[in-house]
Amino acid sequence: MPREITAFSNPLIKRVRNLRDKKHRREEGLFLAEGLRILTEALEAGRIPDYLFYARDMATHSLVHDLIDATEAAGGEAIETNADILSKLSGKDNPGAVVGVYPEFTVALSDLDRSAAPIWLVAERLRDPGNLGTILRTADAIGAGGLILVDDCVDPFSVEAVRASMGALFTVPVARANWAEFATWLRAGPGQLVGLSLDTEVDYQAARYEAPTFLLTGNEAQGMPDFMAAACDITVKIPMLGKADSLNAAIATAVMAYEVLNQRRRG
Amino acid sequence: MPREITAFSNPLIKRVRNLRDKKHRREEGLFLAEGLRILTEALEAGRIPDYLFYARDMATHSLVHDLIDATEAAGGEAIETNADILSKLSGKDNPGAVVGVYPEFTVALSDLDRSAAPIWLVAERLRDPGNLGTILRTADAIGAGGLILVDDCVDPFSVEAVRASMGALFTVPVARANWAEFATWLRAGPGQLVGLSLDTEVDYQAARYEAPTFLLTGNEAQGMPDFMAAACDITVKIPMLGKADSLNAAIATAVMAYEVLNQRRRG
Repeated sequence: MPREITAFSNPLIKRVRNLRDKKHRREEGLFLAEGLRILTEALEAGRIPDYLFYARDMATHSLVHDLIDATEAAGGEAIETNADILSKLSGKDNPGAVVGVYPEFTVALSDLDRSAAPIWLVAERLRDPGNLGTILRTADAIGAGGLILVDDCVDPFSVEAVRASMGALFTVPVARANWAEFATWLRAGPGQLVGLSLDTEVDYQAARYEAPTFLLTGNEAQGMPDFMAAACDITVKIPMLGKADSLNAAIATAVMAYEVLNQRRRG
Repeated sequence: MPREITAFSNPLIKRVRNLRDKKHRREEGLFLAEGLRILTEALEAGRIPDYLFYARDMATHSLVHDLIDATEAAGGEAIETNADILSKLSGKDNPGAVVGVYPEFTVALSDLDRSAAPIWLVAERLRDPGNLGTILRTADAIGAGGLILVDDCVDPFSVEAVRASMGALFTVPVARANWAEFATWLRAGPGQLVGLSLDTEVDYQAARYEAPTFLLTGNEAQGMPDFMAAACDITVKIPMLGKADSLNAAIATAVMAYEVLNQRRRG
Protein backbone atom coordinates (compact mmCIF):
# COMPACT_ATOMS: atom_id res chain seq x y z
CA MET A 1 0.00 0.00 0.00
CA PRO A 2 1.63 3.27 -1.13
CA ARG A 3 2.31 5.83 1.55
CA GLU A 4 1.53 9.49 0.99
CA ILE A 5 3.95 12.39 1.37
CA THR A 6 2.80 15.96 1.00
CA ALA A 7 5.23 17.81 3.30
CA PHE A 8 8.25 19.55 1.85
CA SER A 9 10.01 18.94 5.16
CA ASN A 10 9.82 15.17 4.81
CA PRO A 11 13.38 13.78 5.02
CA LEU A 12 12.94 11.58 1.94
CA ILE A 13 11.83 14.58 -0.13
CA LYS A 14 14.93 16.47 0.94
CA ARG A 15 17.13 13.48 0.20
CA VAL A 16 15.66 12.98 -3.26
CA ARG A 17 15.79 16.66 -4.03
CA ASN A 18 19.51 16.57 -3.21
CA LEU A 19 20.05 14.07 -6.03
CA ARG A 20 19.98 17.05 -8.35
CA ASP A 21 23.57 17.60 -7.15
CA LYS A 22 26.33 15.38 -8.45
CA LYS A 23 27.92 15.10 -5.01
CA HIS A 24 24.80 13.54 -3.54
CA ARG A 25 24.34 11.25 -6.53
CA ARG A 26 27.85 9.91 -6.01
CA GLU A 27 27.29 9.40 -2.28
CA GLU A 28 23.95 7.67 -2.73
CA GLY A 29 24.57 5.90 -6.03
CA LEU A 30 21.11 7.07 -7.07
CA PHE A 31 19.73 9.44 -9.71
CA LEU A 32 16.46 11.06 -10.76
CA ALA A 33 14.34 10.57 -13.83
CA GLU A 34 10.97 12.16 -14.49
CA GLY A 35 8.01 11.91 -16.79
CA LEU A 36 5.75 9.05 -17.78
CA ARG A 37 7.39 8.56 -21.15
CA ILE A 38 10.90 8.20 -19.75
CA LEU A 39 9.94 6.03 -16.78
CA THR A 40 7.91 3.75 -19.03
CA GLU A 41 10.89 3.45 -21.39
CA ALA A 42 13.00 2.55 -18.35
CA LEU A 43 10.51 -0.09 -17.24
CA GLU A 44 10.52 -1.65 -20.69
CA ALA A 45 14.31 -1.80 -20.43
CA GLY A 46 13.98 -3.59 -17.09
CA ARG A 47 14.98 -0.62 -14.92
CA ILE A 48 12.81 -0.25 -11.84
CA PRO A 49 13.04 2.68 -9.41
CA ASP A 50 13.90 2.34 -5.73
CA TYR A 51 11.35 5.11 -5.14
CA LEU A 52 8.49 6.12 -7.39
CA PHE A 53 6.68 9.40 -6.74
CA TYR A 54 3.39 9.93 -8.52
CA ALA A 55 0.63 12.51 -8.51
CA ARG A 56 -2.44 11.31 -6.65
CA ASP A 57 -4.80 12.16 -9.51
CA MET A 58 -2.72 10.06 -11.91
CA ALA A 59 -2.82 6.86 -9.83
CA THR A 60 -5.46 5.32 -12.07
CA HIS A 61 -3.60 6.01 -15.34
CA SER A 62 -2.64 2.59 -16.68
CA LEU A 63 1.04 3.44 -17.24
CA VAL A 64 1.32 4.90 -13.74
CA HIS A 65 -0.41 1.82 -12.40
CA ASP A 66 2.10 -0.42 -14.20
CA LEU A 67 4.98 1.57 -12.71
CA ILE A 68 3.53 1.33 -9.19
CA ASP A 69 3.04 -2.42 -9.54
CA ALA A 70 6.53 -3.01 -10.90
CA THR A 71 8.14 -0.84 -8.23
CA GLU A 72 6.38 -2.60 -5.37
CA ALA A 73 6.93 -6.07 -6.85
CA ALA A 74 10.66 -5.37 -6.99
CA GLY A 75 10.82 -4.22 -3.38
CA GLY A 76 10.84 -0.50 -4.13
CA GLU A 77 8.47 2.04 -2.66
CA ALA A 78 5.66 3.86 -4.49
CA ILE A 79 4.78 7.18 -2.91
CA GLU A 80 1.65 9.20 -3.57
CA THR A 81 2.26 12.93 -3.58
CA ASN A 82 1.12 16.18 -5.17
CA ALA A 83 2.13 18.52 -7.99
CA ASP A 84 4.01 20.88 -5.66
CA ILE A 85 6.27 18.13 -4.41
CA LEU A 86 6.78 16.73 -7.92
CA SER A 87 7.66 20.22 -9.07
CA LYS A 88 10.20 20.54 -6.27
CA LEU A 89 11.75 17.17 -7.10
CA SER A 90 11.94 17.72 -10.85
CA GLY A 91 12.86 21.41 -10.73
CA LYS A 92 10.20 22.15 -13.35
CA ASP A 93 7.19 24.43 -13.05
CA ASN A 94 5.11 21.88 -14.91
CA PRO A 95 6.28 18.55 -13.55
CA GLY A 96 5.41 15.26 -15.16
CA ALA A 97 3.10 12.79 -13.46
CA VAL A 98 5.96 10.71 -12.04
CA VAL A 99 9.48 11.00 -10.68
CA GLY A 100 11.64 7.93 -10.18
CA VAL A 101 14.78 7.42 -8.13
CA TYR A 102 17.02 4.79 -9.72
CA PRO A 103 20.25 3.10 -8.77
CA GLU A 104 23.09 4.31 -10.99
CA PHE A 105 24.42 1.72 -13.39
CA THR A 106 27.50 1.70 -15.48
CA VAL A 107 29.10 -0.58 -18.01
CA ALA A 108 32.79 -1.42 -18.00
CA LEU A 109 34.61 -0.95 -21.29
CA SER A 110 35.68 -4.59 -21.07
CA ASP A 111 32.03 -5.66 -20.96
CA LEU A 112 31.17 -4.00 -24.28
CA ASP A 113 30.81 -6.43 -27.17
CA ARG A 114 32.02 -4.45 -30.16
CA SER A 115 30.64 -7.04 -32.57
CA ALA A 116 27.13 -6.36 -31.27
CA ALA A 117 26.65 -3.21 -33.37
CA PRO A 118 28.26 -1.62 -36.44
CA ILE A 119 28.36 1.91 -34.98
CA TRP A 120 29.57 3.17 -31.62
CA LEU A 121 29.67 6.75 -30.39
CA VAL A 122 32.59 8.16 -28.44
CA ALA A 123 32.70 11.63 -26.88
CA GLU A 124 35.63 13.25 -25.12
CA ARG A 125 35.31 15.97 -22.47
CA LEU A 126 31.70 16.64 -23.34
CA ARG A 127 30.60 19.50 -21.09
CA ASP A 128 26.93 20.06 -21.78
CA PRO A 129 24.42 17.65 -20.19
CA GLY A 130 21.85 18.48 -22.90
CA ASN A 131 24.34 17.47 -25.56
CA LEU A 132 25.12 14.24 -23.74
CA GLY A 133 21.45 13.32 -23.43
CA THR A 134 20.74 14.25 -27.03
CA ILE A 135 23.67 12.13 -28.23
CA LEU A 136 22.26 9.19 -26.26
CA ARG A 137 18.89 9.72 -27.95
CA THR A 138 20.61 9.72 -31.33
CA ALA A 139 22.64 6.63 -30.38
CA ASP A 140 19.38 4.78 -29.76
CA ALA A 141 17.94 5.97 -33.07
CA ILE A 142 20.86 4.79 -35.20
CA GLY A 143 21.15 1.48 -33.36
CA ALA A 144 24.55 2.30 -31.87
CA GLY A 145 26.14 -0.28 -29.60
CA GLY A 146 26.72 2.33 -26.93
CA LEU A 147 28.29 5.62 -25.95
CA ILE A 148 31.81 5.73 -24.57
CA LEU A 149 32.61 8.83 -22.51
CA VAL A 150 36.32 9.61 -22.59
CA ASP A 151 38.14 11.66 -19.94
CA ASP A 152 36.26 14.30 -17.96
CA CYS A 153 32.74 14.34 -19.40
CA VAL A 154 29.63 15.74 -17.77
CA ASP A 155 27.67 13.27 -15.62
CA PRO A 156 25.24 11.17 -17.72
CA PHE A 157 23.03 10.82 -14.63
CA SER A 158 22.39 14.54 -14.24
CA VAL A 159 18.74 15.57 -14.41
CA GLU A 160 19.36 17.53 -17.64
CA ALA A 161 21.14 14.65 -19.38
CA VAL A 162 18.49 12.11 -18.39
CA ARG A 163 15.77 14.49 -19.59
CA ALA A 164 17.42 15.19 -22.95
CA SER A 165 17.99 11.47 -23.52
CA MET A 166 14.21 10.92 -23.43
CA GLY A 167 14.82 7.52 -21.87
CA ALA A 168 17.79 6.46 -24.01
CA LEU A 169 19.98 6.57 -20.89
CA PHE A 170 18.15 3.40 -19.84
CA THR A 171 18.54 1.59 -23.15
CA VAL A 172 21.93 2.62 -24.55
CA PRO A 173 25.02 1.26 -22.74
CA VAL A 174 27.25 4.06 -21.42
CA ALA A 175 30.87 3.32 -20.51
CA ARG A 176 33.39 5.73 -19.03
CA ALA A 177 37.15 5.57 -19.48
CA ASN A 178 40.18 7.76 -19.74
CA TRP A 179 41.85 8.10 -23.11
CA ALA A 180 44.60 5.57 -22.41
CA GLU A 181 42.10 2.94 -21.30
CA PHE A 182 39.91 3.58 -24.32
CA ALA A 183 42.78 3.53 -26.83
CA THR A 184 44.16 0.29 -25.38
CA TRP A 185 40.76 -1.39 -25.44
CA LEU A 186 40.00 -0.14 -28.97
CA ARG A 187 43.25 -1.40 -30.48
CA ALA A 188 42.88 -4.80 -28.86
CA GLY A 189 40.25 -5.67 -31.46
CA PRO A 190 38.76 -4.58 -34.78
CA GLY A 191 37.46 -1.04 -35.09
CA GLN A 192 37.83 2.06 -37.25
CA LEU A 193 38.26 5.22 -35.17
CA VAL A 194 36.77 8.19 -37.04
CA GLY A 195 37.39 11.66 -35.63
CA LEU A 196 35.18 14.65 -36.35
CA SER A 197 37.53 17.54 -36.98
CA LEU A 198 37.66 21.04 -38.41
CA ASP A 199 41.33 20.55 -39.38
CA THR A 200 41.09 18.03 -42.18
CA GLU A 201 40.43 18.10 -45.90
CA VAL A 202 38.49 14.83 -45.95
CA ASP A 203 34.76 15.34 -46.52
CA TYR A 204 32.65 13.10 -44.30
CA GLN A 205 30.88 11.70 -47.35
CA ALA A 206 34.14 10.87 -49.16
CA ALA A 207 35.37 8.48 -46.46
CA ARG A 208 34.36 4.83 -46.33
CA TYR A 209 33.34 3.55 -42.96
CA GLU A 210 34.02 0.02 -41.78
CA ALA A 211 32.20 -1.78 -38.99
CA PRO A 212 32.63 -1.46 -36.15
CA THR A 213 32.95 2.29 -36.66
CA PHE A 214 33.79 4.35 -33.57
CA LEU A 215 32.77 7.99 -34.10
CA LEU A 216 34.78 10.34 -31.90
CA THR A 217 33.35 13.78 -31.08
CA GLY A 218 35.55 16.29 -29.26
CA ASN A 219 34.88 18.89 -26.60
CA GLU A 220 32.28 21.52 -27.53
CA ALA A 221 34.57 24.54 -27.33
CA GLN A 222 37.94 23.12 -28.32
CA GLY A 223 37.33 20.00 -30.35
CA MET A 224 39.65 17.07 -29.69
CA PRO A 225 43.36 17.50 -28.87
CA ASP A 226 45.84 16.95 -31.70
CA PHE A 227 47.12 13.71 -30.22
CA MET A 228 43.64 12.20 -30.32
CA ALA A 229 43.12 13.31 -33.91
CA ALA A 230 46.47 11.69 -34.74
CA ALA A 231 45.34 8.46 -33.10
CA CYS A 232 42.26 8.28 -35.33
CA ASP A 233 42.29 6.05 -38.40
CA ILE A 234 40.75 8.96 -40.25
CA THR A 235 39.53 12.44 -39.46
CA VAL A 236 36.66 13.88 -41.46
CA LYS A 237 34.83 17.19 -41.66
CA ILE A 238 31.23 18.17 -42.27
CA PRO A 239 30.85 20.95 -44.85
CA MET A 240 30.19 24.37 -43.34
CA LEU A 241 28.81 26.96 -45.75
CA GLY A 242 28.04 29.76 -43.31
CA LYS A 243 29.82 32.29 -41.15
CA ALA A 244 30.36 30.08 -38.11
CA ASP A 245 33.08 27.46 -38.04
CA SER A 246 31.40 24.65 -36.16
CA LEU A 247 28.14 22.86 -35.50
CA ASN A 248 26.71 22.01 -32.11
CA ALA A 249 28.48 18.83 -30.89
CA ALA A 250 25.29 16.75 -30.72
CA ILE A 251 24.27 17.93 -34.20
CA ALA A 252 27.66 17.11 -35.70
CA THR A 253 27.58 13.67 -34.08
CA ALA A 254 24.14 12.94 -35.52
CA VAL A 255 24.95 14.16 -39.04
CA MET A 256 28.06 11.93 -39.03
CA ALA A 257 26.27 8.96 -37.49
CA TYR A 258 23.52 9.05 -40.12
CA GLU A 259 26.15 9.15 -42.87
CA VAL A 260 27.68 5.95 -41.49
CA LEU A 261 24.23 4.39 -41.20
CA ASN A 262 23.32 5.50 -44.74
CA GLN A 263 26.47 3.97 -46.21
CA ARG A 264 25.51 0.71 -44.54
CA ARG A 265 21.93 0.98 -45.81
CA ARG A 266 23.28 1.31 -49.37
CA GLY A 267 25.15 -1.91 -48.68
CA MET B 1 34.77 57.68 -22.26
CA PRO B 2 33.10 54.58 -20.80
CA ARG B 3 31.36 54.96 -17.48
CA GLU B 4 31.74 52.36 -14.76
CA ILE B 5 28.92 50.52 -12.98
CA THR B 6 29.63 48.16 -10.10
CA ALA B 7 26.45 48.48 -8.04
CA PHE B 8 23.73 45.85 -8.37
CA SER B 9 21.21 48.53 -7.44
CA ASN B 10 22.01 50.65 -10.49
CA PRO B 11 18.75 51.18 -12.42
CA LEU B 12 20.34 50.24 -15.76
CA ILE B 13 21.56 46.92 -14.34
CA LYS B 14 18.04 46.17 -13.12
CA ARG B 15 16.58 47.14 -16.47
CA VAL B 16 19.01 45.00 -18.42
CA ARG B 17 18.59 42.09 -16.05
CA ASN B 18 14.83 42.29 -16.69
CA LEU B 19 15.45 41.59 -20.38
CA ARG B 20 15.75 37.95 -19.39
CA ASP B 21 11.94 38.05 -19.27
CA LYS B 22 9.98 38.05 -22.50
CA LYS B 23 7.53 40.65 -21.19
CA HIS B 24 10.31 43.19 -20.69
CA ARG B 25 11.90 42.35 -24.05
CA ARG B 26 8.60 43.10 -25.76
CA GLU B 27 8.18 46.37 -23.87
CA GLU B 28 11.71 47.56 -24.54
CA GLY B 29 12.29 46.02 -27.98
CA LEU B 30 15.70 44.96 -26.67
CA PHE B 31 17.42 41.65 -25.98
CA LEU B 32 20.59 40.28 -24.40
CA ALA B 33 23.55 38.50 -25.95
CA GLU B 34 26.72 37.47 -24.15
CA GLY B 35 30.22 36.26 -24.84
CA LEU B 36 33.02 37.57 -26.98
CA ARG B 37 32.48 35.05 -29.74
CA ILE B 38 28.79 35.86 -30.19
CA LEU B 39 29.17 39.65 -29.91
CA THR B 40 32.04 39.62 -32.40
CA GLU B 41 29.91 37.56 -34.79
CA ALA B 42 27.18 40.18 -34.34
CA LEU B 43 29.60 43.01 -35.06
CA GLU B 44 30.77 41.31 -38.25
CA ALA B 45 27.11 41.09 -39.26
CA GLY B 46 26.74 44.82 -38.64
CA ARG B 47 24.77 44.50 -35.39
CA ILE B 48 25.91 46.97 -32.74
CA PRO B 49 24.63 46.99 -29.15
CA ASP B 50 22.83 49.94 -27.54
CA TYR B 51 24.71 49.01 -24.36
CA LEU B 52 27.92 47.05 -24.08
CA PHE B 53 29.01 45.76 -20.65
CA TYR B 54 32.56 44.51 -20.35
CA ALA B 55 34.84 43.28 -17.58
CA ARG B 56 37.40 45.88 -16.59
CA ASP B 57 40.33 43.48 -16.91
CA MET B 58 39.28 42.64 -20.49
CA ALA B 59 39.26 46.25 -21.74
CA THR B 60 42.60 45.86 -23.50
CA HIS B 61 41.63 42.65 -25.34
CA SER B 62 41.58 43.60 -29.01
CA LEU B 63 38.11 42.12 -29.70
CA VAL B 64 36.67 43.88 -26.65
CA HIS B 65 38.36 47.07 -27.78
CA ASP B 66 36.79 46.72 -31.24
CA LEU B 67 33.36 46.24 -29.65
CA ILE B 68 33.79 49.32 -27.42
CA ASP B 69 34.86 51.45 -30.39
CA ALA B 70 32.01 50.27 -32.60
CA THR B 71 29.44 50.76 -29.83
CA GLU B 72 30.54 54.31 -29.07
CA ALA B 73 30.91 55.24 -32.74
CA ALA B 74 27.30 54.19 -33.33
CA GLY B 75 26.01 56.24 -30.40
CA GLY B 76 25.69 53.35 -27.97
CA GLU B 77 27.18 53.23 -24.52
CA ALA B 78 30.12 51.08 -23.37
CA ILE B 79 30.07 50.35 -19.65
CA GLU B 80 32.93 49.00 -17.61
CA THR B 81 31.86 46.60 -14.91
CA ASN B 82 32.95 43.49 -12.98
CA ALA B 83 32.45 39.74 -13.07
CA ASP B 84 29.68 39.81 -10.45
CA ILE B 85 27.55 42.20 -12.49
CA LEU B 86 28.24 40.28 -15.71
CA SER B 87 27.24 37.10 -13.92
CA LYS B 88 24.01 38.72 -12.78
CA LEU B 89 23.24 39.98 -16.29
CA SER B 90 24.01 36.71 -18.05
CA GLY B 91 22.61 34.39 -15.40
CA LYS B 92 25.75 32.27 -15.57
CA ASP B 93 28.23 31.51 -12.80
CA ASN B 94 31.08 31.93 -15.25
CA PRO B 95 30.03 34.88 -17.38
CA GLY B 96 31.77 35.79 -20.59
CA ALA B 97 33.81 38.96 -20.90
CA VAL B 98 31.00 40.95 -22.48
CA VAL B 99 27.23 41.32 -22.46
CA GLY B 100 25.46 43.34 -25.14
CA VAL B 101 21.96 44.81 -25.25
CA TYR B 102 20.65 44.90 -28.82
CA PRO B 103 17.53 46.22 -30.48
CA GLU B 104 15.30 43.37 -31.61
CA PHE B 105 15.06 42.95 -35.34
CA THR B 106 12.71 40.93 -37.43
CA VAL B 107 12.21 40.15 -41.07
CA ALA B 108 8.82 40.18 -42.76
CA LEU B 109 7.95 37.10 -44.77
CA SER B 110 7.36 39.37 -47.76
CA ASP B 111 10.95 40.62 -47.50
CA LEU B 112 12.46 37.15 -47.87
CA ASP B 113 13.95 36.46 -51.30
CA ARG B 114 13.37 32.76 -51.79
CA SER B 115 15.71 32.68 -54.78
CA ALA B 116 18.59 33.76 -52.54
CA ALA B 117 19.20 30.25 -51.19
CA PRO B 118 18.31 26.66 -52.14
CA ILE B 119 17.32 25.60 -48.62
CA TRP B 120 15.05 27.25 -46.06
CA LEU B 121 14.11 25.96 -42.63
CA VAL B 122 10.60 26.19 -41.24
CA ALA B 123 9.57 25.24 -37.70
CA GLU B 124 6.07 25.20 -36.27
CA ARG B 125 5.26 25.61 -32.57
CA LEU B 126 8.85 25.00 -31.54
CA ARG B 127 8.88 25.12 -27.72
CA ASP B 128 12.47 24.75 -26.65
CA PRO B 129 14.75 27.81 -26.91
CA GLY B 130 17.83 25.57 -27.10
CA ASN B 131 16.35 23.78 -30.10
CA LEU B 132 15.54 27.09 -31.77
CA GLY B 133 19.07 28.41 -31.28
CA THR B 134 20.62 25.15 -32.42
CA ILE B 135 18.47 25.13 -35.55
CA LEU B 136 19.67 28.67 -36.31
CA ARG B 137 23.26 27.51 -35.92
CA THR B 138 22.58 24.64 -38.33
CA ALA B 139 20.82 27.02 -40.74
CA ASP B 140 23.99 29.09 -40.91
CA ALA B 141 26.13 25.99 -41.46
CA ILE B 142 24.11 24.68 -44.41
CA GLY B 143 23.77 28.10 -46.01
CA ALA B 144 20.02 28.28 -45.47
CA GLY B 145 18.23 31.40 -46.61
CA GLY B 146 16.57 31.79 -43.23
CA LEU B 147 14.34 30.29 -40.58
CA ILE B 148 10.59 30.80 -40.69
CA LEU B 149 8.82 30.36 -37.34
CA VAL B 150 5.22 29.30 -37.83
CA ASP B 151 2.46 29.83 -35.27
CA ASP B 152 3.31 30.00 -31.57
CA CYS B 153 7.07 29.34 -31.36
CA VAL B 154 9.39 30.16 -28.47
CA ASP B 155 10.99 33.63 -28.60
CA PRO B 156 14.17 33.63 -30.74
CA PHE B 157 15.47 36.55 -28.64
CA SER B 158 15.45 34.62 -25.34
CA VAL B 159 18.82 34.35 -23.63
CA GLU B 160 18.86 30.57 -24.12
CA ALA B 161 18.06 30.75 -27.85
CA VAL B 162 20.65 33.45 -28.50
CA ARG B 163 23.24 31.43 -26.59
CA ALA B 164 22.51 28.17 -28.43
CA SER B 165 22.63 29.95 -31.79
CA MET B 166 26.27 30.88 -31.11
CA GLY B 167 25.73 34.11 -33.02
CA ALA B 168 23.67 32.72 -35.89
CA LEU B 169 20.70 34.76 -34.64
CA PHE B 170 22.57 37.78 -35.98
CA THR B 171 23.39 36.28 -39.38
CA VAL B 172 20.40 34.10 -40.32
CA PRO B 173 17.16 35.93 -41.20
CA VAL B 174 14.27 34.91 -38.92
CA ALA B 175 10.69 35.57 -39.99
CA ARG B 176 7.54 34.87 -37.98
CA ALA B 177 4.13 34.09 -39.42
CA ASN B 178 1.02 32.12 -38.73
CA TRP B 179 0.31 29.06 -40.86
CA ALA B 180 -2.15 30.80 -43.19
CA GLU B 181 0.28 33.62 -43.88
CA PHE B 182 3.12 31.21 -44.49
CA ALA B 183 1.11 28.90 -46.76
CA THR B 184 -0.16 31.83 -48.82
CA TRP B 185 3.32 33.29 -49.21
CA LEU B 186 4.87 29.91 -50.03
CA ARG B 187 2.37 29.06 -52.79
CA ALA B 188 2.75 32.49 -54.39
CA GLY B 189 6.11 31.37 -55.78
CA PRO B 190 8.29 28.35 -56.43
CA GLY B 191 9.12 26.09 -53.50
CA GLN B 192 8.94 22.45 -52.43
CA LEU B 193 7.50 22.03 -48.93
CA VAL B 194 9.04 18.96 -47.29
CA GLY B 195 7.59 17.81 -43.98
CA LEU B 196 9.47 15.70 -41.46
CA SER B 197 7.03 13.10 -40.25
CA LEU B 198 6.81 9.82 -38.40
CA ASP B 199 3.67 8.87 -40.35
CA THR B 200 5.03 8.28 -43.84
CA GLU B 201 6.68 5.47 -45.71
CA VAL B 202 9.02 7.72 -47.71
CA ASP B 203 12.64 7.48 -46.61
CA TYR B 204 14.33 10.88 -46.48
CA GLN B 205 17.06 9.64 -48.80
CA ALA B 206 14.60 8.30 -51.38
CA ALA B 207 13.00 11.68 -52.04
CA ARG B 208 14.41 14.19 -54.52
CA TYR B 209 14.62 17.74 -53.29
CA GLU B 210 14.12 20.73 -55.55
CA ALA B 211 15.30 24.25 -54.82
CA PRO B 212 14.07 26.19 -53.07
CA THR B 213 13.37 23.42 -50.56
CA PHE B 214 11.42 24.41 -47.44
CA LEU B 215 12.03 21.90 -44.65
CA LEU B 216 9.18 21.87 -42.14
CA THR B 217 9.84 20.56 -38.61
CA GLY B 218 6.90 20.11 -36.25
CA ASN B 219 6.42 20.66 -32.53
CA GLU B 220 8.80 18.67 -30.31
CA ALA B 221 6.14 16.64 -28.50
CA GLN B 222 3.41 16.30 -31.09
CA GLY B 223 4.99 16.74 -34.50
CA MET B 224 3.01 18.74 -37.04
CA PRO B 225 -0.80 18.60 -37.29
CA ASP B 226 -2.28 16.39 -40.02
CA PHE B 227 -3.47 19.37 -42.05
CA MET B 228 0.07 20.71 -42.29
CA ALA B 229 1.43 17.31 -43.33
CA ALA B 230 -1.30 17.21 -45.99
CA ALA B 231 -0.24 20.64 -47.24
CA CYS B 232 3.35 19.45 -47.78
CA ASP B 233 4.49 18.46 -51.27
CA ILE B 234 6.04 15.45 -49.65
CA THR B 235 6.52 14.07 -46.15
CA VAL B 236 9.60 12.02 -45.38
CA LYS B 237 10.96 10.07 -42.42
CA ILE B 238 14.39 9.49 -41.01
CA PRO B 239 15.09 5.82 -40.22
CA MET B 240 14.85 4.97 -36.53
CA LEU B 241 16.47 1.68 -35.51
CA GLY B 242 16.12 1.96 -31.74
CA LYS B 243 13.48 1.82 -29.06
CA ALA B 244 12.41 5.45 -29.20
CA ASP B 245 10.16 6.75 -31.94
CA SER B 246 11.64 10.18 -32.58
CA LEU B 247 14.80 12.25 -32.67
CA ASN B 248 15.31 15.59 -30.98
CA ALA B 249 13.74 18.25 -33.25
CA ALA B 250 17.00 20.11 -33.87
CA ILE B 251 18.78 16.84 -34.64
CA ALA B 252 16.09 15.71 -37.09
CA THR B 253 16.18 19.11 -38.80
CA ALA B 254 19.97 18.93 -39.21
CA VAL B 255 20.01 15.35 -40.50
CA MET B 256 17.36 16.31 -43.09
CA ALA B 257 19.05 19.58 -44.02
CA TYR B 258 22.38 17.88 -44.67
CA GLU B 259 20.64 15.33 -46.90
CA VAL B 260 19.24 18.17 -49.02
CA LEU B 261 22.65 19.83 -49.09
CA ASN B 262 24.37 16.54 -49.98
CA GLN B 263 21.99 15.93 -52.88
CA ARG B 264 22.89 19.37 -54.19
CA ARG B 265 26.60 18.72 -53.71
CA ARG B 266 26.29 15.60 -55.87
CA GLY B 267 24.74 17.84 -58.51
